[in-house]
Amino acid sequence: MSLDTARLVQMANAIRALSMDAVQAANSGHPGMPMGMADVATVLWGEYLKHDPAAPDWADRDRFVLSAGHGSMLIYALLHLTGYAHPTIEDLRKFRKLGSPCAGHPENFLLDGVECTTGPLGQGLAMAVGMAIAERHLNACFGDELVDHRTWVIAGDGCLMEGINHEAIGLAGHLGLGRLTVLWDDNRITIDGSTDLSTSEDIKARYAATGWHVTACDGHDFADIRRALDEAAADPRPTLVACRTIIGKGAPNLQGTHATHGAPLGDEEIAASRETLAWTSHPFELPAEIVDDWREAGRRGADVRAQWSRRAAEHPRKAEFERRMAGNLPAEFSLDDHISGLLADPVKVATRKASEMALDVINRQLPDTIGGSADLTGSNNTKAGGIAPLTAQDYSGRYIYYGIREFGMAAAMNGMALHGGIIPYGGTFLVFTDYCRGAIRLSALQQTRVVYVMTHDSIGLGEDGPTHQPIEHLQSLRMIPNLLVMRPADAIETAECWDIALRQHDRPTVLALTRQNLPQVRSSTHDKGLSARGAYRLKAADAARKVILIATGSEVHLALECAAQLEGQGIGADVVSMVCTQLFDEQDRSYRDDLLPNVDPSQILRVSIEAGTTFGWERYTMTNGLAIGIDSFGASAPAEDLFRKFGFTADAIVPQIINKLNG
Amino acid sequence: MSLDTARLVQMANAIRALSMDAVQAANSGHPGMPMGMADVATVLWGEYLKHDPAAPDWADRDRFVLSAGHGSMLIYALLHLTGYAHPTIEDLRKFRKLGSPCAGHPENFLLDGVECTTGPLGQGLAMAVGMAIAERHLNACFGDELVDHRTWVIAGDGCLMEGINHEAIGLAGHLGLGRLTVLWDDNRITIDGSTDLSTSEDIKARYAATGWHVTACDGHDFADIRRALDEAAADPRPTLVACRTIIGKGAPNLQGTHATHGAPLGDEEIAASRETLAWTSHPFELPAEIVDDWREAGRRGADVRAQWSRRAAEHPRKAEFERRMAGNLPAEFSLDDHISGLLADPVKVATRKASEMALDVINRQLPDTIGGSADLTGSNNTKAGGIAPLTAQDYSGRYIYYGIREFGMAAAMNGMALHGGIIPYGGTFLVFTDYCRGAIRLSALQQTRVVYVMTHDSIGLGEDGPTHQPIEHLQSLRMIPNLLVMRPADAIETAECWDIALRQHDRPTVLALTRQNLPQVRSSTHDKGLSARGAYRLKAADAARKVILIATGSEVHLALECAAQLEGQGIGADVVSMVCTQLFDEQDRSYRDDLLPNVDPSQILRVSIEAGTTFGWERYTMTNGLAIGIDSFGASAPAEDLFRKFGFTADAIVPQIINKLNG
Repeated sequence: MSLDTARLVQMANAIRALSMDAVQAANSGHPGMPMGMADVATVLWGEYLKHDPAAPDWADRDRFVLSAGHGSMLIYALLHLTGYAHPTIEDLRKFRKLGSPCAGHPENFLLDGVECTTGPLGQGLAMAVGMAIAERHLNACFGDELVDHRTWVIAGDGCLMEGINHEAIGLAGHLGLGRLTVLWDDNRITIDGSTDLSTSEDIKARYAATGWHVTACDGHDFADIRRALDEAAADPRPTLVACRTIIGKGAPNLQGTHATHGAPLGDEEIAASRETLAWTSHPFELPAEIVDDWREAGRRGADVRAQWSRRAAEHPRKAEFERRMAGNLPAEFSLDDHISGLLADPVKVATRKASEMALDVINRQLPDTIGGSADLTGSNNTKAGGIAPLTAQDYSGRYIYYGIREFGMAAAMNGMALHGGIIPYGGTFLVFTDYCRGAIRLSALQQTRVVYVMTHDSIGLGEDGPTHQPIEHLQSLRMIPNLLVMRPADAIETAECWDIALRQHDRPTVLALTRQNLPQVRSSTHDKGLSARGAYRLKAADAARKVILIATGSEVHLALECAAQLEGQGIGADVVSMVCTQLFDEQDRSYRDDLLPNVDPSQILRVSIEAGTTFGWERYTMTNGLAIGIDSFGASAPAEDLFRKFGFTADAIVPQIINKLNG
Repeated sequence: MSLDTARLVQMANAIRALSMDAVQAANSGHPGMPMGMADVATVLWGEYLKHDPAAPDWADRDRFVLSAGHGSMLIYALLHLTGYAHPTIEDLRKFRKLGSPCAGHPENFLLDGVECTTGPLGQGLAMAVGMAIAERHLNACFGDELVDHRTWVIAGDGCLMEGINHEAIGLAGHLGLGRLTVLWDDNRITIDGSTDLSTSEDIKARYAATGWHVTACDGHDFADIRRALDEAAADPRPTLVACRTIIGKGAPNLQGTHATHGAPLGDEEIAASRETLAWTSHPFELPAEIVDDWREAGRRGADVRAQWSRRAAEHPRKAEFERRMAGNLPAEFSLDDHISGLLADPVKVATRKASEMALDVINRQLPDTIGGSADLTGSNNTKAGGIAPLTAQDYSGRYIYYGIREFGMAAAMNGMALHGGIIPYGGTFLVFTDYCRGAIRLSALQQTRVVYVMTHDSIGLGEDGPTHQPIEHLQSLRMIPNLLVMRPADAIETAECWDIALRQHDRPTVLALTRQNLPQVRSSTHDKGLSARGAYRLKAADAARKVILIATGSEVHLALECAAQLEGQGIGADVVSMVCTQLFDEQDRSYRDDLLPNVDPSQILRVSIEAGTTFGWERYTMTNGLAIGIDSFGASAPAEDLFRKFGFTADAIVPQIINKLNG
């Protein structure tokens, strides 16, 4: 529907008024963007966006991403005005205050209608690419009747200047995601001032070079905005709409300057703005007829949704679609046979290979997965189970060649997981978590089920040398809240870790996997499912227990060797495989105390063995324990030489333990 | 000079032969790139590159960056062939073996002539941008007589696909760095296969959109390569040369495929290649006449350097130029007066403001600094001391508006530091170290003096919420080898930290600074320079010492409050300001034991207080100590509310301490 201009002006001014007032009340925030983009947002939300405020989780809704998350009052105003249950006016009054769902930046876990957490610049747009992939893939799986929606993004200059933008739009252009539209707030202002200070780029030409359809509009001319959105909808490519706007539009003395970007306008300028906008209502009060117009616009989607629900009810694959959108695994999903097979017939493989073996089973049982790699498919062993590439020609594929785009991959995976219906996993080398750490953090904060397949997880990578050898990475990832970091020791643990990761509804997992082969340390004498407790006793001391060796991943078999040598000298040694510190920390005290009894190191010495930094291992070794690790950068050489050089042999470790015991 | 084609063919084949043989001997490595780019590299190093193998550290040499660092045999071959002292043939034979300077990827600290460490894709090119900035800036400072060189980069598809490429070329285009030339190995192959798998981008159009001059050449046609390099030299803009090449050129059965990218060719294919190339020498043997040609090419620069040395000897600013290139501070450089002023007249300011106050003094005394911010100038307080912007119109400026390009900024700073003559510093929010962590790690690995001014270093940032509040960042940075992380508590410590950071010749520093105001905790009763020991006793217990409070940055004054409450209850408490854990760990045992005596927590309880993760603090609190921190994500609210919510008040902390003492 097309609304009349006078009404649209008022509707847009409602956004402006709420934004000014909320930022002023909070005494912090960003009025410039919401005021500048109010007109564009009014056309989009008033006439185009397919959604139903009464059913925010409707599977076939359009996804709207405010990539320029600092302009959070824009989406809060839109959600309120179109009739979502939250935010209420009271919520808006408490913008940026403790306990309000209207946080400084939009948080997906605080408000329905906020599809993802934005603020870290560039990531919103990059997540939208993932949402658009998810839409096309599910469309290919379930057809137009169930899946047929668009993804809209509002992005600022910051989102476009960040490196991740290049990766994200490269992926979107290559995959021909025509249902993705980016509305760029082309206001020529950044925090530091004019964009001229830092950039000379022809952004439109860059997008065109990357396979995008590019158009522009006057961001304050409703008809022109409509024309651009119609153009976007008609073009088979993803579209960039350069919306020429005036930042802080409506603030007569400050608009068009960076003074409106990130600070309250002040009472005086707000008064002047009210006059300019002919806005006579008091702060946080809205004229009833404007609210009515907005609510009516919000009800546009109700019929469409009702029709969709009728179609869905009759759809032969309704149950499967609902299962996937709910994020539940099929009841029959299980890796048990695979694990039993490994117990019966042990393998000596790299855990990256063990991961491929697990994926071979997973991908055949679980249609939900979409895998990929940042151009390391053969190294990460991520293509398994007969899945075909997802391409612009065939969206039903389940493997994405992400290219050399770690950050873009991780953000796209977040977008897919947030969209729902998909469990994304993707690989690179563990050391390159540094390239996508911002997105890994957002996986954790947003509570998304994303599985990071991070291979070549230590100096065991060998010849590529220190730039490619993780040292601080395992520990530095373990300290990200709500992120599981798992480092399996063999093929059994690897399968268990995959199973655990897939069953996490609200947190991401990093699997740290080896390049080099590892013996299978688990056998039929052990219970199944031990990794679920995060750590477990792999081997109990034979002689009187004097030592507990706590090892992870590729160092577990080394710990077993050390234990054997110690036992040979009459020193009893447990070996604990610490698969995942976070899960271990979540166990009850009795389990933890049983595994790691809180006694003086003079009675039982705890020794950690991990081919990475020792930083933080005191938590498990205790103060006078022994932490075997690497606190410098690695080196280039064959793996075995490096393990020797850095002291990762039983012959190097056991004497240190004995010294310590005697000390 | 222009060499004859038949000789160039042989010279290029020498690179191919050494690359095949070394990779085969190592049984790992990447022959495809060196073989594909051998012809381009031969023209560049044989005829264009200004350097003198006899004086690798000649200040006015051209900088050559092998951004596609996996093709390390290319630069090793070139260094050997042109007559650098290293690598020797023996070094080449030990390619990728323990102790060889010929590491898997080029390491600047292992070989002269390797200007920077490359391998993490995209960063080499981005560092080259920094080198090119450094060249223009020093040229503006010292004139053409002393500084007049070019920066050359060989980059692959990976370098161009990474997000950092967008940031780097945006900066280079904006700053009009015409002496920067990127030779893109346009071989249409990545690890996973054809570039068609993952990208549809028109790279040349993208570079053109970003203000670059773009040309192309047949990468196997010497005349065409020359034509392109001449074009690059003539154009005032930075140039991208798309060198159309065949990966693994010379290997008759594998060339043009990803099979040559990252694995030895195998004996059979190497034999076939020798035949194809008419190369009859044995592995690692080179025909004398080819070596002669290469050595002669290597001597091209000797005269130019001699002329330069004569000019330099007569230059009125020779001493200053040499001081700067050596990286020495002026003898008279001192922050002593500034610190004395603060002691005499204490201030209550945010440490970001204290940093600005220090910078105001530093930038006036030290012409070596080039500051900047990733579009947060007013928030990072990085523009100080009257420095003017460095722009395409005026390279003499010392402040760079980096735009919203954290990773590009960090890499450019590495490049400036590596070039020499400049001490770069740059700012963003601490949480966005996640966006540039890959470059921070390379600062540490490459031993560069870069100062990261990371403000808004905790929940004290307030309303912007969890996406902007560091939790794990301080600890996760502290575990990067060779990186100083400093979190000063007040204006005095901030000045001391700046002084320490500037005096580091071979390591980078992260300064973690507050948004919020902090009282000055140091007064004239304290010694000067205390931060240099990493940690020091700010306040000694009055009553019998039962507690040691170890705090950092904004929590130090809180620790003093806690101590006062404890003393009020007759419990003696030291307060230790832990400015920099790394520097503290480097102190001798007696100093460390004096500050943190190794006694049972039941006698002296150690308590850490830092508004970030508790992970790792056991190293200083000991196992049964108390770690006050935040192990979840933050929230959006005014800072004071957040500190209260997360328990950062004396009223919340002191009872925990007393509990623990009584427990």
